Amino acid sequence: MSAETMTRGQIVPIGGAEKKTRDPAILARFAQLCGGDGARLAVIPTASSLEDTGARYERLFTDIGCRVRVLPFLDRADCERAELIDPLHRADGVFFTGGNQLKLTTILGGTSVADLLRERNKSGLHVAGTSAGASFCSEHMIAHGKEGATPREGMVQLVPGLGLSPHTIIDQHFRQRDRLGRLLAALAYNPRPVGIGLDEDTAAFLGPDDVLTVRGTGAITVVDAGGMTHSTMDTARHGEPVSMLGVRLHVLSDGDTFNLVTREACLAEDSSEEPSP
Amino acid sequence: MSAETMTRGQIVPIGGAEKKTRDPAILARFAQLCGGDGARLAVIPTASSLEDTGARYERLFTDIGCRVRVLPFLDRADCERAELIDPLHRADGVFFTGGNQLKLTTILGGTSVADLLRERNKSGLHVAGTSAGASFCSEHMIAHGKEGATPREGMVQLVPGLGLSPHTIIDQHFRQRDRLGRLLAALAYNPRPVGIGLDEDTAAFLGPDDVLTVRGTGAITVVDAGGMTHSTMDTARHGEPVSMLGVRLHVLSDGDTFNLVTREACLAEDSSEEPSP
Repeated sequence: MSAETMTRGQIVPIGGAEKKTRDPAILARFAQLCGGDGARLAVIPTASSLEDTGARYERLFTDIGCRVRVLPFLDRADCERAELIDPLHRADGVFFTGGNQLKLTTILGGTSVADLLRERNKSGLHVAGTSAGASFCSEHMIAHGKEGATPREGMVQLVPGLGLSPHTIIDQHFRQRDRLGRLLAALAYNPRPVGIGLDEDTAAFLGPDDVLTVRGTGAITVVDAGGMTHSTMDTARHGEPVSMLGVRLHVLSDGDTFNLVTREACLAEDSSEEPSP
Repeated sequence: MSAETMTRGQIVPIGGAEKKTRDPAILARFAQLCGGDGARLAVIPTASSLEDTGARYERLFTDIGCRVRVLPFLDRADCERAELIDPLHRADGVFFTGGNQLKLTTILGGTSVADLLRERNKSGLHVAGTSAGASFCSEHMIAHGKEGATPREGMVQLVPGLGLSPHTIIDQHFRQRDRLGRLLAALAYNPRPVGIGLDEDTAAFLGPDDVLTVRGTGAITVVDAGGMTHSTMDTARHGEPVSMLGVRLHVLSDGDTFNLVTREACLAEDSSEEPSP
């Protein structure tokens, strides 16, 4: 692993609806990661269509002790404006709010802001995002899809995301919105990435060693289709169920870890590795 | 640019229907690139549902002077079989035939074969593919889509490809099948990659410096949406036309070049750069 890789900042996708009052554990942990008291956080509310989303997170992170700048990138021209970009050079962490992840890709995609965030994350900037902001972190982003536990052809739309995490496809509100099917469908096309299904109020803290640690009150469903023996996605017609044989699945809760390189899961308490299959 | 990057093998997507008899210029140029007489080529016919596709390319490349091995990866288990993988360690070039690109992603995706090809391409293995094989080369692969020149929401399905070329989205049979709309739609989601629309009997020879050179009897349509000022893909409903303002387009023919990093096009004859806008 190169030195550059080992200095990468953490990538912290959150499944949405994280606790914001009385022990906002995930947000506090992210603030701590960024340096704790006095950490410089940039909040990017681009995904949201609500006017006060940025201000709300500004208050939350300020209460925790951070120095917060809200950067309202409202259109692509904003993403080339120096006064909005400059704070990103000095930030310790960046936080993407929820909303519509396609607002993030259509407004930030291919701009100086996106280039800078990818580059700075490689050298230590921590990046978190909740809900739409979580989806945006990966290279292959779920733009939208249908509910249900059964994978079907055409039930999920993948598009290029910010590209911080090339090895994952991230989904959010996972259990709450019954999204196993669309995550399976995404992997039935090509099982190279690992599927990460984040429940609400649950986050993956993904370190520079590509090991993620679960934090929060829900679970993370890890779908590893690398050992899949068959997928019928190549011949399925629109809306048809897709057969997938030999998919490996882990349900991980607070403190458990998953190594994206070796594809091994570990329990929190005893750090014992999963038994070999 | 790192030393590793500069030793990358060439990536050669071909738009399909390349000339196979009497002056098969593109195939001969690829063979030459791999070392000419005696070059060791591996042909991967996985995309094709026709039984003789591998044998056909074996004859073609043998006639040109290559030593050819056809590697029939028919299912995912084949992609872990040493006797089928071993020749890839010694090959100078790999050629993916046409067919259905989803057969390539569902069978090869996430296997030892795909990992090895990505790794060996970084250190010098040349990789070509025609039609479905061309689409497969990129990180974000067009799996299928609708015809027409107007981009519409939902008209194109993107999935993870082999991932040799992270900076492009490749389409083929481009002019012949009226695919400008689906390539534009792909970029309307996120204009970070460059769109490469390959006509039939036309190839992009993409060097380790990320400069591509056009070869063949048709054209390559390069769609650069990096400077796009607006995309309505975030709010478009299924099937609706999508507005895209400020897309830059180049039509390039034999000998012309395009630099994926600087996004500059050059004419073949005088090597003059395009005038500034």
